[in-house]
Amino acid sequence: MTLTLIALENPTADFAAVFTRNALPGAPILIGRQRLDEPQLGAIIINNKISNVCAPDGVATAEKVCAAVGDLLDIPASAILPSSTGVIGWSLPAEKMLESLPAVLPGLQRTSILPAAEGIVTTDLYPKIRRAEVGGGSIVGIAKGAGMIEPNLATMLVYILTDIAVPRAALRAMLPRVVGPSFNSISVDSDTSTSDTVALVSSGQVPCEDLAAFEAALATVCSDLAEDVVRNGEGVRHVLRVAISNAPDEITARQLGKAVVNAPLFKCAVAGNDPNVGRLVQAIGKHAGSLGTGSIDLSKLRLHMGGIEIFANGVFQLNPQKEQALVAHLKSAELYASIVPADGIYAAAVDYPPHERCVEISIDLGTGSAAATVIGGDLTHEYVSENADYRS
Amino acid sequence: MTLTLIALENPTADFAAVFTRNALPGAPILIGRQRLDEPQLGAIIINNKISNVCAPDGVATAEKVCAAVGDLLDIPASAILPSSTGVIGWSLPAEKMLESLPAVLPGLQRTSILPAAEGIVTTDLYPKIRRAEVGGGSIVGIAKGAGMIEPNLATMLVYILTDIAVPRAALRAMLPRVVGPSFNSISVDSDTSTSDTVALVSSGQVPCEDLAAFEAALATVCSDLAEDVVRNGEGVRHVLRVAISNAPDEITARQLGKAVVNAPLFKCAVAGNDPNVGRLVQAIGKHAGSLGTGSIDLSKLRLHMGGIEIFANGVFQLNPQKEQALVAHLKSAELYASIVPADGIYAAAVDYPPHERCVEISIDLGTGSAAATVIGGDLTHEYVSENADYRS
Repeated sequence: MTLTLIALENPTADFAAVFTRNALPGAPILIGRQRLDEPQLGAIIINNKISNVCAPDGVATAEKVCAAVGDLLDIPASAILPSSTGVIGWSLPAEKMLESLPAVLPGLQRTSILPAAEGIVTTDLYPKIRRAEVGGGSIVGIAKGAGMIEPNLATMLVYILTDIAVPRAALRAMLPRVVGPSFNSISVDSDTSTSDTVALVSSGQVPCEDLAAFEAALATVCSDLAEDVVRNGEGVRHVLRVAISNAPDEITARQLGKAVVNAPLFKCAVAGNDPNVGRLVQAIGKHAGSLGTGSIDLSKLRLHMGGIEIFANGVFQLNPQKEQALVAHLKSAELYASIVPADGIYAAAVDYPPHERCVEISIDLGTGSAAATVIGGDLTHEYVSENADYRS
Repeated sequence: MTLTLIALENPTADFAAVFTRNALPGAPILIGRQRLDEPQLGAIIINNKISNVCAPDGVATAEKVCAAVGDLLDIPASAILPSSTGVIGWSLPAEKMLESLPAVLPGLQRTSILPAAEGIVTTDLYPKIRRAEVGGGSIVGIAKGAGMIEPNLATMLVYILTDIAVPRAALRAMLPRVVGPSFNSISVDSDTSTSDTVALVSSGQVPCEDLAAFEAALATVCSDLAEDVVRNGEGVRHVLRVAISNAPDEITARQLGKAVVNAPLFKCAVAGNDPNVGRLVQAIGKHAGSLGTGSIDLSKLRLHMGGIEIFANGVFQLNPQKEQALVAHLKSAELYASIVPADGIYAAAVDYPPHERCVEISIDLGTGSAAATVIGGDLTHEYVSENADYRS
């Protein structure tokens, strides 16, 4: 287990957070929701390996850790946000954590967020950090993935820090707006973690001259981190970017995109560089059918993959040349070639993404003016090995 | 491609069918819905390999095949139900099919349905046939799976034949009732085929003395076939039987069961004989959370696996002895041990199920009196190989 401490030089009133909508959330989520009512936030204490979900006395244990951190930093426990990720069902080793905490303090430094980004990971292959400069200050965010990722109006563990002075109320209005098209528009495996958290904290050191510019920069950091989370999703070898256009409304568009990136047979086809676009059409029809007749008008449906038209006027638009081009597009977006292991336990053959390309899918509904983009991954032997061959 | 012909000695008015709710259905589904209005059904012509979905002139091609079958049997094309399963997006090879049809006729026989059950399969490992005797006659059903299986108010290809005389109106009232708790309560991979069909045909040769007994027998045939479809689901090594009890209503219960059998991380844990019940709790919480606060009351949730209590009073009820017993239960339900292949392409190591055991999961909501049982499978390397390593 790694303990990660993010401490402000001075506690701030300007912080915001959104949490998982999973109906059986972890103890840190229950506490975090209460912390939103506190006047100040001074630190975030994060552990990996054990998520502290539905464990006996889970809330009391997390509060004990917060109290110990508060004692060390000389701030109240109520100014500490706890966060945990890892196995669901196990209890936190409270005594060992309390013993270890004093050793964490000397590690605090102000030069790099990299140790924190490295400290919070579980099955992630690499740390995820994104930064934007805006108005003389900056926004920096870190995230952990890598499985149980389909955030539902909240997300995985993400911490975003800024020196730009943005008041609490503005941060809290802004965070849901930027989370919608970023963390809420991704899915690795359709599973929603019990620990999802996005926290946004302003130290207030640089005056904010342009709130809209700040929000735009924040949106960029969130979108970039969200794509990072998918690119490093468990077993992901292809990132899928599904752009839905001319939809009746944004929610319809986003849900349709989610249905596509969560369709296991289409995900498997992508993993195999197989342009089996029949499975893409199946996924769209499944979703529309599940909503009931007439809920989504597919009569004007047009589909492209890698810029190649594959469906229009109610029928497929395919030929052998297009299929070859689709295979080439799929291969160009592959992050690494799968290596057949002697022991059957597949592992990702990269430790850092070699490129930022995606399998580009465009779904034009032709019935409105709304749009959304959803990011997802393929379904691979590496995912199954990660999740079936040992406990993570 | 195999062509399978099911022909009645005399056309019957007594037939029923339910079809996929996928919003982009195949040409045979579009035709089949019209056939329900026809006065009589005389035959069903089925091909595998190509599903005839959204292919140019797909309906015209299927009608051509029906006309040719009608000519051979001396009945109108409108008395022929066409059915296709296989790759989505390709066109049927109409000319070759028409040339082959005359050779199908001599194969018609009345002794065994096995050739038909073998003829309709695609990635299935074995034919699926179930039979019930009732009131001096019998009901026999055949089914094909094995992937793209989460029927939505209809199902995969299933043909149920009976000599019991049950009028058309009664058959059509009965079929949706028996399909609900059988084919609509299973999922292999959450994907809904564009070709799902259940057809029920009575030859009327044996008078029906007890309609309720007939419906009960029909329900048994459907439930047995539905479980067969999952047990032979692509890559399935463990069948999961999720019994939801004390739920507020049956739909809530069934949807919760579906959420559990479709949760990829839990499915992977089962595949690995890993009693990672945290992922089961995650799946339940994800589903309840996605429906919105208060939609499902989880305050009285009790969970058992293999008869062992694992969750009650808001916390896990686990200890090392229980974990060992859970592993033993998972292993006892495994259909075969996975064999690591030298070329990385996993294949099922059985050609017929060695037992009918399931991973038994019980979800007691404690808030009502409704119940439902949902059947699903695990997520394995065999599934990924089947669907990523070559086109099926």
